[in-house]
Amino acid sequence: MSASGPAGDDAGPLAVICGGGSFPFLVADAAQRRGRGVLLFAIRGWADPVAVARYPHHWAGLGQFGRFRRLARAAGCRDVVIIGTMLRPSILNLRPDLASLRYLPRIARLLRGGDNHLLSGIARVLFEANGFRVIGAHEVAPDILVPEGVLGRHRPCERDHADMARGLALIAAMGPFDIGQAVVVADNYVLAVEAAEGTDQMLARVAALRRERRVRLSGKVGVLVKAPKPAQDRRLDLPSVGARTVAAAAEAGLAGIAVEAKGAITADVAAFVEAADAAGLFVFGIAAPAPPERL
Amino acid sequence: MSASGPAGDDAGPLAVICGGGSFPFLVADAAQRRGRGVLLFAIRGWADPVAVARYPHHWAGLGQFGRFRRLARAAGCRDVVIIGTMLRPSILNLRPDLASLRYLPRIARLLRGGDNHLLSGIARVLFEANGFRVIGAHEVAPDILVPEGVLGRHRPCERDHADMARGLALIAAMGPFDIGQAVVVADNYVLAVEAAEGTDQMLARVAALRRERRVRLSGKVGVLVKAPKPAQDRRLDLPSVGARTVAAAAEAGLAGIAVEAKGAITADVAAFVEAADAAGLFVFGIAAPAPPERL
Repeated sequence: MSASGPAGDDAGPLAVICGGGSFPFLVADAAQRRGRGVLLFAIRGWADPVAVARYPHHWAGLGQFGRFRRLARAAGCRDVVIIGTMLRPSILNLRPDLASLRYLPRIARLLRGGDNHLLSGIARVLFEANGFRVIGAHEVAPDILVPEGVLGRHRPCERDHADMARGLALIAAMGPFDIGQAVVVADNYVLAVEAAEGTDQMLARVAALRRERRVRLSGKVGVLVKAPKPAQDRRLDLPSVGARTVAAAAEAGLAGIAVEAKGAITADVAAFVEAADAAGLFVFGIAAPAPPERL
Repeated sequence: MSASGPAGDDAGPLAVICGGGSFPFLVADAAQRRGRGVLLFAIRGWADPVAVARYPHHWAGLGQFGRFRRLARAAGCRDVVIIGTMLRPSILNLRPDLASLRYLPRIARLLRGGDNHLLSGIARVLFEANGFRVIGAHEVAPDILVPEGVLGRHRPCERDHADMARGLALIAAMGPFDIGQAVVVADNYVLAVEAAEGTDQMLARVAALRRERRVRLSGKVGVLVKAPKPAQDRRLDLPSVGARTVAAAAEAGLAGIAVEAKGAITADVAAFVEAADAAGLFVFGIAAPAPPERL
């Protein structure tokens, strides 16, 4: 995998399409540490301008694929990482440039699916059809992957393990519907399912339900379970966790956080685990299920 | 079915365990219209005291099964309807009387499942094991069932039909997890899944996501889909809709509301449809899927 290996002269700099948050810069730093040049394409309205300024970069709007293609080709980029928060746009909010226009009908069709479908479709329709190679952020920066097993000071109990298993099974069952990277299960009872609202808001809802005694659970109970959807293109959208997730889970009165090991990313594993330790929450990396046998 | 037929002298009055809302009284009225006597067991903290006072009644706390059994037997009740809102209690919030105490371990185990599981388990463990017959509110008052087809002035378009189908399939897929009587699907995209928070709160979330432009959809789009979970004991907990559902769905910018025909209840079908007409929403009763063939 040339992206995570030493820079090949032929590969050119790594193009990083930067949404919001710190992940784009972790990826850029990891590439640079390996001697690979980077060229950031900062998405207007999403990427952090202060951080972006530290790297070779261009600004672009969502929909300016033509601008990307021209500048990336001129710089000799072949590999592209797409990383960071970018809310699902409406086709009406895109300001497509000329090169993007011809892809609009296909993108409009993609917008009718779930989020996976959208991202992997855009990777395929725009980037790969134009000779770029889309690679995962975690392939460039494997340190952002949450590892396996008990990661902090606190350990899940038997009830927590049962809640994790139920949560994972639910995420798998919802896979075909392209939702549900996260659920909250407490003592075998599914309290919340994440769809378009995001994990922090889902956890705030659980906190409110418990505060208002609309769900009556005693003590620290329940697990936030996050895992990639089965059909998810892992190059494009792994679920993420961080100190904010810990704070929201603690506020919701949960016992811990479980993610699929190497199936979720965090900006700083040590800081994430430390926050959980301090909040009295366990953090557990569930061994990924074996890939389905091909018949 | 003697409950929905004329009163048999041998059946005694219909016992109605009354939670919150107006459904308990619709059931009591329907029974009385058919000449059947009723005896209400009003759950303290949930049943409406003003309405309860219009019927022969006793008050009881959740957990006072012994009191129910004694009074119901003394009145000659054999048939029981359990209806109205009663939030899932914690075992710690129950104030069990002596007769209930022996069932506590089994109820504690039931509390670890989802809501279905809880209600049907309690019906079985408490009521049926003691010789009562649990019947559905809609068996006594069939008028509360939402009928099939286009019910109001507005008609679902092709996109709405696709959204309904996706929503129904998702509810079916989540069935084994005992959640999800309701979901919102907009233009093939699942915006929200209901778990412990209830339908109104789920719709308020969709309204907020759209208002904050975190989900970008244009115009009236999306369907609230409600249907019983596949494993649900329909005698105990059919999903309900009403004028408040219409207001919340309109606030969320949806195109309409779809329920499984005869798989959801509403206090007043005509008033519900009228509210939807006025709000510009369609109401559709989806024909129930054929029961699975037995092999």
